[in-house]
Amino acid sequence: MPEFLELLPPPEAIKRWMAHLPAPRPEAENVPTFQSLGRVTAAAIASPEALPAFPRSTVDGFAVIARDTFGASDSLPAYLSLAGEVPMGRQPDFTLHPTQAALIYTGGMLPEGADAVVMIEYTQPAKPGEIEVLRASAAGENILKAGEDVAPGQIILQAGVRLRPPEIGGLLALGITQVNVTCRPRIAIISSGDEIVGPQASPAAGQVRDVNSYSLGALVEQAGGEPVLYGIISDQRQALQQALQTAQDECAAIIVTAGSSASTRDLTAEVIQNLGEPGVLVHGVNLRPGKPTILAVCNGKGVVGLPGNPVSALVVASIFATALVERLLGLTNPRPKPALVARLTINLASQAGREDYVPVILSAGPQGYLAEPIFYKSNLIFSLARADGLLIIPSAATGLSAGDQVTVTLL
Amino acid sequence: MPEFLELLPPPEAIKRWMAHLPAPRPEAENVPTFQSLGRVTAAAIASPEALPAFPRSTVDGFAVIARDTFGASDSLPAYLSLAGEVPMGRQPDFTLHPTQAALIYTGGMLPEGADAVVMIEYTQPAKPGEIEVLRASAAGENILKAGEDVAPGQIILQAGVRLRPPEIGGLLALGITQVNVTCRPRIAIISSGDEIVGPQASPAAGQVRDVNSYSLGALVEQAGGEPVLYGIISDQRQALQQALQTAQDECAAIIVTAGSSASTRDLTAEVIQNLGEPGVLVHGVNLRPGKPTILAVCNGKGVVGLPGNPVSALVVASIFATALVERLLGLTNPRPKPALVARLTINLASQAGREDYVPVILSAGPQGYLAEPIFYKSNLIFSLARADGLLIIPSAATGLSAGDQVTVTLL
Repeated sequence: MPEFLELLPPPEAIKRWMAHLPAPRPEAENVPTFQSLGRVTAAAIASPEALPAFPRSTVDGFAVIARDTFGASDSLPAYLSLAGEVPMGRQPDFTLHPTQAALIYTGGMLPEGADAVVMIEYTQPAKPGEIEVLRASAAGENILKAGEDVAPGQIILQAGVRLRPPEIGGLLALGITQVNVTCRPRIAIISSGDEIVGPQASPAAGQVRDVNSYSLGALVEQAGGEPVLYGIISDQRQALQQALQTAQDECAAIIVTAGSSASTRDLTAEVIQNLGEPGVLVHGVNLRPGKPTILAVCNGKGVVGLPGNPVSALVVASIFATALVERLLGLTNPRPKPALVARLTINLASQAGREDYVPVILSAGPQGYLAEPIFYKSNLIFSLARADGLLIIPSAATGLSAGDQVTVTLL
Repeated sequence: MPEFLELLPPPEAIKRWMAHLPAPRPEAENVPTFQSLGRVTAAAIASPEALPAFPRSTVDGFAVIARDTFGASDSLPAYLSLAGEVPMGRQPDFTLHPTQAALIYTGGMLPEGADAVVMIEYTQPAKPGEIEVLRASAAGENILKAGEDVAPGQIILQAGVRLRPPEIGGLLALGITQVNVTCRPRIAIISSGDEIVGPQASPAAGQVRDVNSYSLGALVEQAGGEPVLYGIISDQRQALQQALQTAQDECAAIIVTAGSSASTRDLTAEVIQNLGEPGVLVHGVNLRPGKPTILAVCNGKGVVGLPGNPVSALVVASIFATALVERLLGLTNPRPKPALVARLTINLASQAGREDYVPVILSAGPQGYLAEPIFYKSNLIFSLARADGLLIIPSAATGLSAGDQVTVTLL
C-alpha cells in the first residue's frame, strides 16, 4: 500500500471516491419547524393550501372595480361611493358593486367584487360617503391573488435543501409546524500517533496534545454531522485496526488522522484497506497542503485518511470530509458556498498541476478586500486561526500575481 | 410620531442608532472548548505555554548539526555516524555531537545539539552505523523551534472573536479545555397585527399565520442570539405597550414587527417611544424593501421596529437586527461576511438615493456565478425561500445593466 504512486487532482479524487460510495439513504426524523435551522429536508414538501389563502391588498387605500377608475385623473376624478371598511383579520361582510369603493389596509381581504386597490395617496375625500379617485387603476393592481405565492399541492421545497430563516417562515405560513429532515450522520473521528496525548494532559517532552479530534469534530458539526470521538490510538497495527473496525460498525463514515511519518501513514492505509471492499481508492492527492490524503470506501462506508499535521488535516477535511458529510446528510440541493472576492497583495508561486490552498488574512481596502497570504511552516495551527479564509491557486496556474482578483473560501 | 419625515440611508441609520446604544457589556460563561463552535470570546486569551513546547522535525530524515553538512553534494557527500533513533513521543536519551546524525520522524523531538534535519531523500546508507548526506543543510531547516507557533504569554485570541474549527483546535493544543465566551443575548420577538394567528391555527378568511416570529427567530439564532418569542399581540395600544414593556424588562433587545397599515406602524412607533429615552432615533430608511423601519434605543436597550410584510421584515432584520445581536454578543472582531461575486442576467432599474435589495438565484456559469433577479410582490415569503441571496443596488446607482459584476450576500 505505498503512497504517491499516482497523485490525483482533487476533483478527480473526489469523483473516483464518490463513484464507489453507495447512494446515500439518510434516516429521517420529524422536528418542530421552528427548531429546524440548518437541517436538510428528507423529502419534497408540497403545500397543503394556497398562500395567500384569499386575495389581499398590498397597500393602504381603497378597494375598487378597476373599470370604474378608467380615465380618472387629477382634473377628472372618478367619484365612488363608500361601501364600507374592511376590518383587519376578518372577511368583509359586504360585496362591492359598480361605482363603489371600500377602505382597506395593507394585508386586508379584498371584498367580493373588487379587483384592484387604489393607493390612499391617489384618492381624496369628496362629500360624506364618497371619494375621488385621481388615477386610473388596472385590474390586479396592488393586490395579491389567492395562491399567488404558492398554489395548493405545489412543491414548495425539494428534498435535500438546507433550511434557512425564509424557508422556516414559509413552512409556518402554511401551517407546517413539523418538518421531515434527515438525521445528522454519525462521523467517527480517530487520531492516531504515539506522540499524541489528550488535551487535558500535561505532555512530557516529545509529546503533543491532540488537536485534530477537536478541530475536525467542529468541522463535522459545522457541516451538519455528529462527530463521534474515538480518542487517540497508538500507531500499533492491531490497536488501530480494532478502533477502525469499531468505528465502522457504529458510524456512517470514518475520519482518521495518520501518524506523521511516512511509515505510519502507510500503516494507516493498510489498516483502512483491511476494512473491506473496494478499499483504498485514492492514496495521494495533488494538493498542498494535503498530499498524503487517503480516500476509501469499505463495505459501503466512506473513509478519509488525513495527514497528522493539524493544518493539512483541517484543509483537506474541509474539502473531502465536508463533501462526505453533506452527501450523507442528503444535501442534494446545496446553496453556493460562502466565499469572497479579494485582490492579492503579493505574487505567489505555485507548481503547475497542483492545487494550492493558502491561508489569507482579509482586510477591507477602498476597492474591496485585500488578501494577504500567511506564510507558515506545516503544523502551526495558529497560522490557520489567524486566517480569515483559504485562497485556492488552481492546478492549471503556475502562480498568481499581486493585484490578481482571487476567490477566498471562508474557514 | 409620523413616519418618513426624513428617510435616512442605511449606513447613516445604523450610525445614528449605534451612537445611542450603550457600550455592550455581555455576560460571560465558561464552556468546554470542544463545544464552543460559533461562540464569541469574552476576553483576550494568553497562551499558558510555548507551542510547540520543544523543537520538532517537520520531515522524516536525519537530525544533524548543519555545519557538518556544509558543501555536501551527490559527488562529495558528508559522512555522519548514527547516534541513534528518536522515538516518537519521547525525549531522545542522547545528545548529538559533531559529525553525528540521528534518525527522526515527522513530529519527533530534536535531540540536544542538533539544529537541522536533512530529508531522508537526500541521504543514503553508507557502512553500518554511518550515512551519507548528499545536500548541505542550513541551521533551522526542516525544524520548528520551541514557541515558533505561539510564545508563552502571547495573546492567541483577542476578545470578541467568533470561534471556528482552527481556533478550537489551537486552544486544545495549548491544553485550554474551557473557554470564556459571551452569553447569547436574549432577543425579544413580538409580532403584532389583528389579522395574525399562530402557525398551528386554521386561519379564518381574512387571517394569516404568523411568519415573522419564526423567520426572525431563526435569523437571531443564526447570528448567535437567543430568540424569546412573545407571540402575537393585537394592534391595541395597551396590549402592545404592555408586551413591549415586559420584553424590555426581560430581554437585552426587542424586535417588533408592526401591523401592516400605516396607522398601525405609527402606533408601533408611539409605543416604542414610550419605552424610554432617547426613544425613536430613525423612522424611515431609504431602503427597498424596508422603508418603514424604526430604530430606537429606550433606557439603554435597542429596539427594531420592522414592517409586517415578511419579506421586508427579514431583509431589514438581516441588516439591522443582525448588527444589534452581534453588538450584544460582543463580536468586536468580526470576520468578513461572505459575499459572492456574480454577473447580472438582466437590466435592473433603481431609484438614486435608495438602497435596493433584490433576491436573486445564483447559477454557476463558465465565467463564474450568474445572478438572476426574482421579481416578486411584497409579502411573498417563498420568493425569499427560492433565493440564494440578496443583490444590493447601491444608493448612488440608478440601476444595473445585464452583465454587470454584482455582489450577492447569501441569505
